[in-house]
Amino acid sequence: MKKLRLFTFLLLGTMGLSAQQDIFMARGLTSPEIHDDGTVTFKVKAPNASEITISGSWMPATGLASGVEIMKKENDSIWSYTSNRLKPEMYRYSLTIDGVGSIDPNYAHAIRDVANLSNIFIVGDGQANLYRVNQVPHGSITYRWYDSPTVGKTRRIAIYTPNGYENSDNNYPVLYLHHGIGGDEEAWLGSGRAAQIMDNLIAEGKAKPMIVVMPNGNVFQEASPGNGSSGFVQPTFMLPNTMDGKFEESFKDIKKFVEENYRTVEGKEGRAIAGLSMGGFHTANIALNYPDTFDYIGLFSSALGVRPMGDNNSTIYEDKDSKLKLQKENGYKLYWMAIGNADMEMILKGNADFRKKMDDIGMLYEYKETDGGHTWDNWRKYLSIFVQRLF
Amino acid sequence: MKKLRLFTFLLLGTMGLSAQQDIFMARGLTSPEIHDDGTVTFKVKAPNASEITISGSWMPATGLASGVEIMKKENDSIWSYTSNRLKPEMYRYSLTIDGVGSIDPNYAHAIRDVANLSNIFIVGDGQANLYRVNQVPHGSITYRWYDSPTVGKTRRIAIYTPNGYENSDNNYPVLYLHHGIGGDEEAWLGSGRAAQIMDNLIAEGKAKPMIVVMPNGNVFQEASPGNGSSGFVQPTFMLPNTMDGKFEESFKDIKKFVEENYRTVEGKEGRAIAGLSMGGFHTANIALNYPDTFDYIGLFSSALGVRPMGDNNSTIYEDKDSKLKLQKENGYKLYWMAIGNADMEMILKGNADFRKKMDDIGMLYEYKETDGGHTWDNWRKYLSIFVQRLF
Repeated sequence: MKKLRLFTFLLLGTMGLSAQQDIFMARGLTSPEIHDDGTVTFKVKAPNASEITISGSWMPATGLASGVEIMKKENDSIWSYTSNRLKPEMYRYSLTIDGVGSIDPNYAHAIRDVANLSNIFIVGDGQANLYRVNQVPHGSITYRWYDSPTVGKTRRIAIYTPNGYENSDNNYPVLYLHHGIGGDEEAWLGSGRAAQIMDNLIAEGKAKPMIVVMPNGNVFQEASPGNGSSGFVQPTFMLPNTMDGKFEESFKDIKKFVEENYRTVEGKEGRAIAGLSMGGFHTANIALNYPDTFDYIGLFSSALGVRPMGDNNSTIYEDKDSKLKLQKENGYKLYWMAIGNADMEMILKGNADFRKKMDDIGMLYEYKETDGGHTWDNWRKYLSIFVQRLF
Repeated sequence: MKKLRLFTFLLLGTMGLSAQQDIFMARGLTSPEIHDDGTVTFKVKAPNASEITISGSWMPATGLASGVEIMKKENDSIWSYTSNRLKPEMYRYSLTIDGVGSIDPNYAHAIRDVANLSNIFIVGDGQANLYRVNQVPHGSITYRWYDSPTVGKTRRIAIYTPNGYENSDNNYPVLYLHHGIGGDEEAWLGSGRAAQIMDNLIAEGKAKPMIVVMPNGNVFQEASPGNGSSGFVQPTFMLPNTMDGKFEESFKDIKKFVEENYRTVEGKEGRAIAGLSMGGFHTANIALNYPDTFDYIGLFSSALGVRPMGDNNSTIYEDKDSKLKLQKENGYKLYWMAIGNADMEMILKGNADFRKKMDDIGMLYEYKETDGGHTWDNWRKYLSIFVQRLF
């Protein structure tokens, strides 16, 4: 062990003092520390800071402001904060140190959501267990590039293939899964824990083995920020062409790529489509414009109340009523909608209006209203419910 | 555009004040800003901070301490620092805000190296262009799991397949590429930019299309921290069993998995192996113990001077001299070693001793000594040179 220490210490020589500090000096400072009773303690070593606050996804929001708590200076150098008991869930948190946004300096697990890095951790069992990497057979995750002539770009896409796919001759059904505004092809795998949810539900026999295709819904981009040829651009909500019909038009390129490159179950009984927020808007409109393509449609907190924008002269958003009627006539097995009762008025109303449209023509759907708002907590839950109903 | 703004603003309601601050209030604060002359300006908005320092991989290190510069408070709220002209390279940097380690709060691109998150950016052309995502045909990156009976675990592995692999019947040669201590199956794709280097060199016709297999060399782990069933554990250098022969023994499981699952070129002319630091140690020992398996061996800043440790009763590190002779007799096309002249004494000496061993038996190799030390700057460069020599 002595040898290893020496070697490590020498190696650190080239890695800088900050690395050493994290590894040697701050050792013993465990943050976050998840206690058996579900409370969680966060600690920061900061002898010179004047104020440290923590903002966590479990804290109740007040209007536009998410919850923030002030950390207490325990002694000359250590600041700490302990949460209430947290229910089983994956949580995110971030800090501000003397007014500057930061992640936990003692914790390496962070995830990007749009432009923000937050730390993440998981508490408890039950539903939260679906978000963990458990010792079950794991599927593969592939980042590939497909040609999208509709968009005039080669674009990056994430694909989950279930365990066993590579060593089988079977055809598999496909779920096309769409992210929200500001997200990209990595969102469902990151904040959405889609691979873990699929691995765990398939292992429990609760979901069928399926391919999950996660495209990038921002046709302005080739790929998530940092993974395309525009380099390390700053992620933003403010992308052009996200809701102008172009992505929905380009869905045919994605479907073609998937069906030419993967062993898929033919016909609509082998296809499902779902999405959250903007991805729910994309989902609804793709389903309307690709008649007889999907037997399963899932709208999660779908941004149905948002008017399309942009100057793409698309017919994607035209003749919605007749397209909906056609979809009804063509038939499908499940049209599933879920939304949090604390979601934005605009989103709630958009969904209510859409349901009314369906009711008016006697089009069947299932509607689930849950607690909570426009959050990943809900979207992970919706995905885990929806995929159990597929195929 | 008004609609989009409104929608976005509403969405942010559920995402917390910190998100809004980053997107709305700090907009216009570009950091890092790479100027045409190769200087780079970093800015932080921090009206209440007392001291902000920046540590960048371009700053000269002093002994065990990496370079640190103090940022200047430009006005009531903005701190800034401008670098000298930086030569083309990928750089990392991090901040300390009133003594607490932090990443740049206005920049979303960060990468984990062992337990540390740092921001990254790329400056300039030439060699640095190899590290960019350019508009060239892209390979695929897959995270898969393979069975390792030698280790008694199912383990995660990263695999790069070159553009065209999926739509061809050709067999491809394989490079097995190993990370250093504290690293994992993500290190070469993250800090090492292996996928970009391969994409760019293949597109230029300077490297042959090849499969690049990046295993996790820590047999203690199933996967990189956060991606295995031990959960969001803190990454550390201090893992048991990293250099006790077990990983080298388990290489047969990796080779078996790759050759059963990918269309590979048979025989040693279709196999290369390389690694950095601890991965160079693994590479040298795998090459010694799998006689007649590789035509190409690459040791990058290889930790050859480190004595193996641990209590695995392995024969991996025994009879080195006779194994080396056998390797010589079996023949190979390239034994390539590179190291920075500012590397640690222990590493330089280990490499010199190993070369002497080879000289003593008249075993051919190429040796390249570069500027710099035990750094990713060098390892990216070595990879980009080495792969041009393969197959």
